[in-house]
Amino acid sequence: MYVRNCWYVAAWNHEIKENALFSCMIINQPLVIYRKADGALAAFENRCCHRGAPLSMGRREGDNLRCLYHGLKFAPDGRCIEIPGQDRIPNNACVKTFPVIEAHSWIWVWMGDPALADPDLIPRAMALDTPGWQSRSGHIEYETYYQLINDNLLDFSHLGYVHPTSFATSEDWAFTRPKITRVPRGLRIERWVTDQPSAHGVDAPRVDIWNRYDFLLPGIIVMDAHAVEAGGAQRNDMGPPDLTKTPALFTQYSCQAVTPVSDHRSRYSYSVLMPDHLAGNGMLDGFWAGTLAAFEEDRIIIEAQASINRLDPDRAPVPTSFDAALGQFRWLIEKMVKEEQSVSAAPVVAA
Amino acid sequence: MYVRNCWYVAAWNHEIKENALFSCMIINQPLVIYRKADGALAAFENRCCHRGAPLSMGRREGDNLRCLYHGLKFAPDGRCIEIPGQDRIPNNACVKTFPVIEAHSWIWVWMGDPALADPDLIPRAMALDTPGWQSRSGHIEYETYYQLINDNLLDFSHLGYVHPTSFATSEDWAFTRPKITRVPRGLRIERWVTDQPSAHGVDAPRVDIWNRYDFLLPGIIVMDAHAVEAGGAQRNDMGPPDLTKTPALFTQYSCQAVTPVSDHRSRYSYSVLMPDHLAGNGMLDGFWAGTLAAFEEDRIIIEAQASINRLDPDRAPVPTSFDAALGQFRWLIEKMVKEEQSVSAAPVVAA
Amino acid sequence: MYVRNCWYVAAWNHEIKENALFSCMIINQPLVIYRKADGALAAFENRCCHRGAPLSMGRREGDNLRCLYHGLKFAPDGRCIEIPGQDRIPNNACVKTFPVIEAHSWIWVWMGDPALADPDLIPRAMALDTPGWQSRSGHIEYETYYQLINDNLLDFSHLGYVHPTSFATSEDWAFTRPKITRVPRGLRIERWVTDQPSAHGVDAPRVDIWNRYDFLLPGIIVMDAHAVEAGGAQRNDMGPPDLTKTPALFTQYSCQAVTPVSDHRSRYSYSVLMPDHLAGNGMLDGFWAGTLAAFEEDRIIIEAQASINRLDPDRAPVPTSFDAALGQFRWLIEKMVKEEQSVSAAPVVAA
Repeated sequence: MYVRNCWYVAAWNHEIKENALFSCMIINQPLVIYRKADGALAAFENRCCHRGAPLSMGRREGDNLRCLYHGLKFAPDGRCIEIPGQDRIPNNACVKTFPVIEAHSWIWVWMGDPALADPDLIPRAMALDTPGWQSRSGHIEYETYYQLINDNLLDFSHLGYVHPTSFATSEDWAFTRPKITRVPRGLRIERWVTDQPSAHGVDAPRVDIWNRYDFLLPGIIVMDAHAVEAGGAQRNDMGPPDLTKTPALFTQYSCQAVTPVSDHRSRYSYSVLMPDHLAGNGMLDGFWAGTLAAFEEDRIIIEAQASINRLDPDRAPVPTSFDAALGQFRWLIEKMVKEEQSVSAAPVVAA
Repeated sequence: MYVRNCWYVAAWNHEIKENALFSCMIINQPLVIYRKADGALAAFENRCCHRGAPLSMGRREGDNLRCLYHGLKFAPDGRCIEIPGQDRIPNNACVKTFPVIEAHSWIWVWMGDPALADPDLIPRAMALDTPGWQSRSGHIEYETYYQLINDNLLDFSHLGYVHPTSFATSEDWAFTRPKITRVPRGLRIERWVTDQPSAHGVDAPRVDIWNRYDFLLPGIIVMDAHAVEAGGAQRNDMGPPDLTKTPALFTQYSCQAVTPVSDHRSRYSYSVLMPDHLAGNGMLDGFWAGTLAAFEEDRIIIEAQASINRLDPDRAPVPTSFDAALGQFRWLIEKMVKEEQSVSAAPVVAA
Repeated sequence: MYVRNCWYVAAWNHEIKENALFSCMIINQPLVIYRKADGALAAFENRCCHRGAPLSMGRREGDNLRCLYHGLKFAPDGRCIEIPGQDRIPNNACVKTFPVIEAHSWIWVWMGDPALADPDLIPRAMALDTPGWQSRSGHIEYETYYQLINDNLLDFSHLGYVHPTSFATSEDWAFTRPKITRVPRGLRIERWVTDQPSAHGVDAPRVDIWNRYDFLLPGIIVMDAHAVEAGGAQRNDMGPPDLTKTPALFTQYSCQAVTPVSDHRSRYSYSVLMPDHLAGNGMLDGFWAGTLAAFEEDRIIIEAQASINRLDPDRAPVPTSFDAALGQFRWLIEKMVKEEQSVSAAPVVAA
């Protein structure tokens, strides 16, 4: 079950190299993406309309793309503009194209109706090259359906059980109920976890941790998190911290994207950003190493969960109160998929 | 097709270590097994009732088991006794448990109706630590349905063709018809193979070999075998040997268990035991090395047979007289499966 | 979709060694092939009729084949002639055999009605040991359905795009329309590609290339190709070259066979032959190295094409004029398969 009318993260922008053809798959759709001479992007179905060879094994010629099986050449709008040795080009000789945009260091592809591809629907992530910040980025692939990864990211009660060392998170994360609010096309999840042992090189006996993220369609996290001296949560009335009153001893912004590749595979792209004045002294490097370890811990437990669930896929989970956010997000996806299906099934009425 | 109301061998008892969680699968059911403080066993479905994470990746806390995804804790009877951060525990928050017993050095799990789990139905195998005996044990996994392994073990006419070197068995095994008798929940198969060249370090020109085993549900072998000086079969009127009259030059007891893991995978556990006075001088070590080689030979031919059969699974075999025992055992399993299905389909009548 | 009534190439004749059992699969049928004492061949279904063990793991005994699971012995005509320990041999104890012939250095197996197995239907390929010629041969396996490989070999417009270095073929191959004619059980494809840069050690500024091959059921190429001094095509009126008038600077004969193994796997066997007077000076070695590289290029693009097509197997290709030959050959296969099915479905009428 996939929402189609949204922007999916295909890759980090530095993965789409000049003069190269980048192949990927999003919601079972193979794609090839490349940069034109002016740096703008083109995204095609990765399948020549002739005999189905992948265009990603082809060759850029100017802004056009030639299939390197039998030589058909396509313009960036998908029209075939040359069939070697043949004058007439059939009208149906074209390849499907997809709206594609580079923004906030990510490559976004719109998988639904191109007429609805509104750039304003792209979540406002934080670019890797934001001045005053240092950043790290990466990605891994999961052998699982995307919803298990969304579930994981929508319920941080697992932090104390899965990441006690890598993220140095205590079981208090499971005993702290976050505030969950609806935002356009997603949820906002925020909380204080108070009176925690300090970690990641923070020089304070105990800290209060503020964590807030938006989880937006199709599966984009935009997060800011701070550690302040213990007591800071109270001094901010348990609301968003005023960092001028309670200075951050530790700050990370993180952008993450869960992209369904196929029904059994997903891509998880992620960044961590830290302000220059904190990133030094190894704080960013140390936290990044922990982050990579933590995401590997997630992958291991989620792929194991997927293996177990595959044995009996229709078994209903016993819900707990921590499923609130993930339940709402699954409901949101279901609702949007139904809306998209009813639109595409609607009769076309003449104006 | 699996009998459920019987004890399956999950593992050797030494595989279930103190403070560890042992995961396995029996007839498609994932299980986690662990020892409580008093050494007694608990066996759970290896699936947290919350979101399906494997409990084998969890943590023993006293006699309880905590899932290390979101922290739910379960008592040995399967009831959830803690949901971190949540006071109320739903009635259906529990994990299925299975009767489990340690006996004769094996861990036995009852996969059917717990009310019928009678410990007396456990076959009387021979423990690895039987005083006066030396033992070896091991196990391998097959990429096949269990019945092909049962078939192999129920027809020793293959010994001269598959194991002529490893077991030093001649083709006479195919020309000797065993006596097959019904025993409770299985078959007894016994025979003399006479006038054989001696092997395994036996110091005699020729020997008669006595081989007897019970093959019991679901797929348990309890075997004793002896080599006596040639002529010994006659001196015992071709019946079970009186070893005071015809001393054993070679003796092995062997316990073996075929456990269906899934429809395409099986586990084969096995032991060899030899009395102290024969085991020395390398006789046990030599025979054990041959046994391991022989079981590898079986695995290779059976997995190859499985590959061929998968291409045309409905083709009927051309039967031979050597299929008598395996035919009877397949019939026995079929009969029991039908009985179990008719019981579970029967209407419940008020008393 | 497979034609059954034809000769399939199982292997090069040197792959079937004396005293060995050769196993392979053709159109989903596992086979075992061996040489009798007189060198003649026997081909069996690779499945013992008893319990389905592969006979290729058995043992040749004279001209007979013994299964090394339970010892059944089969004569070259497939009849079981011994069941160890059992006097009576059931009438249905036999293994299916297949007509098999060694010809032109290949082993050919007839997969259809044995009554129709006419040796004259074997394509006249060129033997590897043809006097006056030097030869090279090899084979690779593809993880694809055979028709994608046939398609590739029936449309050489890909030569300039897939093999510009390995075969030194220019894009002119896509701009030269071949002459396609029907021959019995196949097609003849011939063309001149003129005014090409010379390659493969040919000492001439420019050359004209003559390429002609028959593509015959089930997927056999018999090809001759020559390079002559530029202008030679005209001097031969664009027809088959008279090599006494326009001497060949380069000549290769090539025999190739596409054998469907299963629905997802194919075997591709190939040779190159060069006359003695040209083969020296490294011309054959150089061309053979290029050939191996080219066939690897084909495998990579075709397996990639297969991966893409599997995602949406019913999508129709947009045809081009270059599909003429492959379309005709697909039609030919379809027609023959239909004829075979209607024959096997026809009522049997008494004479």
